[in-house]
Amino acid sequence: MENQTPWKYAVVGSGAIGCYYGAKLARAGREVHFLMRGDLGTVRRDGLRIRSAQDGDILLEKVHAHATTPEIGPVDVVLIGLKTTANHALDALIPPLLKDGTMLMTLQNGLGNEALLAERFGAERVLGGLCFVCLNRVAPGIVEHYGHGTLSLGEFNRPPLPRTERLVAEFRDAGIDARVVQNLAAERWRKLVWNIPFNGLAIAAGHATTADILRDEGLNRLARNLMREVVGAAGRLCHEIPPAFIDDQFERSWKMGAYKPSSLLDHAAGREVEVEAIWGEPWRQAVAAGAKVPQLEMLYALLKNICPRGK
Amino acid sequence: MENQTPWKYAVVGSGAIGCYYGAKLARAGREVHFLMRGDLGTVRRDGLRIRSAQDGDILLEKVHAHATTPEIGPVDVVLIGLKTTANHALDALIPPLLKDGTMLMTLQNGLGNEALLAERFGAERVLGGLCFVCLNRVAPGIVEHYGHGTLSLGEFNRPPLPRTERLVAEFRDAGIDARVVQNLAAERWRKLVWNIPFNGLAIAAGHATTADILRDEGLNRLARNLMREVVGAAGRLCHEIPPAFIDDQFERSWKMGAYKPSSLLDHAAGREVEVEAIWGEPWRQAVAAGAKVPQLEMLYALLKNICPRGK
Repeated sequence: MENQTPWKYAVVGSGAIGCYYGAKLARAGREVHFLMRGDLGTVRRDGLRIRSAQDGDILLEKVHAHATTPEIGPVDVVLIGLKTTANHALDALIPPLLKDGTMLMTLQNGLGNEALLAERFGAERVLGGLCFVCLNRVAPGIVEHYGHGTLSLGEFNRPPLPRTERLVAEFRDAGIDARVVQNLAAERWRKLVWNIPFNGLAIAAGHATTADILRDEGLNRLARNLMREVVGAAGRLCHEIPPAFIDDQFERSWKMGAYKPSSLLDHAAGREVEVEAIWGEPWRQAVAAGAKVPQLEMLYALLKNICPRGK
Repeated sequence: MENQTPWKYAVVGSGAIGCYYGAKLARAGREVHFLMRGDLGTVRRDGLRIRSAQDGDILLEKVHAHATTPEIGPVDVVLIGLKTTANHALDALIPPLLKDGTMLMTLQNGLGNEALLAERFGAERVLGGLCFVCLNRVAPGIVEHYGHGTLSLGEFNRPPLPRTERLVAEFRDAGIDARVVQNLAAERWRKLVWNIPFNGLAIAAGHATTADILRDEGLNRLARNLMREVVGAAGRLCHEIPPAFIDDQFERSWKMGAYKPSSLLDHAAGREVEVEAIWGEPWRQAVAAGAKVPQLEMLYALLKNICPRGK
C-alpha cells in the first residue's frame, strides 16, 4: 500500500455498525468522517467509545463528527450503515459525498440495497459488505461489542477489483477480520438462509427466541422448510447452496441458546423492522425466478402487517 | 310428532351457543336442563335471557339449571356447547347423562369433536350441528343475539336417520332455521374454508379484522391460497367443494365490514383459542390424506405458539 494517496472515508448512518467499523479505521490512522444526528453533541464533547471484552476498548477522543454531508464533502469511500427502512434518505445524503471514483459500500441487511445505490448513483460505484458481528449502541457515543466482527466485501454484480483488495487490506490493517468475496449476491443469499426463518419466526410466533424455535416441533419444521425455500430460490438465481449448509445452520443455532434475533429486538423496542430488505425483496426475487416459496410468502405478508411502518 | 314420548334435553357447556339453542327449545315447551358453572346462581334467581333485535327477546324465568350432570340424570339428547379446549372434561360430564339411545350432539367448532365422542361413548350416539349464528354472552344469564341462527344437523359418518329428522323438526318448532345435512364431515370442511384463513390470519397478522385482511394485498392473497389448500384437502378426503365456493366466501366477507372473527375476540380477551379444532386437526387430516398444505401448516405452527394454552 505504499505510494497510494490515503483514502478519505465517510460513515453515513452512524449506528452501532457504522460506528464500530468507522472507529476501527480511524484508530488505525484513516481519515473517517461520521454523519451523526442524535449523538452528535455527545460525540463532539466526549468522543466515540467502543467497548469490547474480546478486542479491548477503543476511545476516539477527537472525532470528525458532522451534522450534514455537505460539511464532509467528497470522499473516496462511503460506508452506509443506515437502517434499510431509512433508505429514502440516501437521495439527499449521498450526492455531496461524490467525486470521480467514490465507492459506495453498503453494510446493510438483506437484499436490494446495492441495486438501489446502483440505480441512483451508478453501478460502478457500488460494493457491499456482510457484517457478522454482535453490537449494540448502549448510549450516545458508546457501542458495546459482544463478539465476532468478520466483514465480507464484494463488488456489486462483478468479481473483485484492485480497489476491493485495497479496501480489505485497509480493514485488516484496522484489526478487522475482512475478506473478499467473489460473488456478493450469493453471500447475501447464504446469510438469508438463517435470517429469513429465525428473524421472521421470532416475531411471527409471538416473541420466540432461537431456542424456542428449535425446541417447538412445528416451528423447527417451519424453520427448516423456510431454509429449503431460500436455498431453492438461491439455486434458481444460480447461487448454489449445498443442502448440508442447512444442517450447519441448525447446529450453529443450537449453540446460541435463547438468542433474540436483531429483528425481534427491533420489534420489541418499537423500532421499525427491515421487512422489505429481509423478506420482501428476497420473496420478489424468488417469485421472479420461478421458485416455489409459499411459506416465505406467508411470513412476508404476516410481518408486513405485524410490524408497524415508520413515517 | 304426535304419539312420541317427549325428549329430555341437556345442555353441556352453557355458553352463548348452548344457552341460545337450549332457551329456544325450552321456550317451545321442551324439557331442557342446563349444566352451568359461573352463571348458575344468577340464572336460578333471575332466569335466562336472550336479547335479539331480529327475533324478539326471550326470558326463561324458570330454568332447570344444575351444577353437575348427575343432578340432571339420563336424557335423550345432549347438546354440547363446550369450548373444544375443554373437551377433556367430557369424560367426567357425559356418563351420568347416558341411557340407551342417548344422542350426543356437538355444536362445537372445527374437526375432531364427533370422533372424540364416538371413541369415548360409541359412534352410534353421535351427531353434529354447525351453527351459523352471531351471539355473545354479555353478562351472567344474558346472551345477545346479533343475527342469523341457522343450524345444520347431521349424523357422524352416516346419512340422516329418522331421529335426525325429528331433531330438526323439534328445532324448527322452536323457531330455529334447522336443516338436515347428508354429509356432516363435508359441511365441516366447507365451514373451515372460511374459518381457517379468516380466524387464523386475524390473529397471526397482529389483530386484523376481515376488512384488513381483504384490503391488504398480501393477506388477501394468503386468505385465498389458504382457502385453496383447504378445498384441496377436502377434495382428497372426497368432500368435493367447487372452486366457485371460494369466490362466494370472498364476496360474503366483503359485506361483513371490519368484522372480528370469534378466535380473534377470544385471543384479544385472553381466552384460549380453539387451535387444535380449527387448524391442528384439519392439518393432520390433510397431511394424512396426502394434501399439500404448506400455508395451513405454517398458520397452525404459528398460532400454537402465539395463543397461550390453558391449564
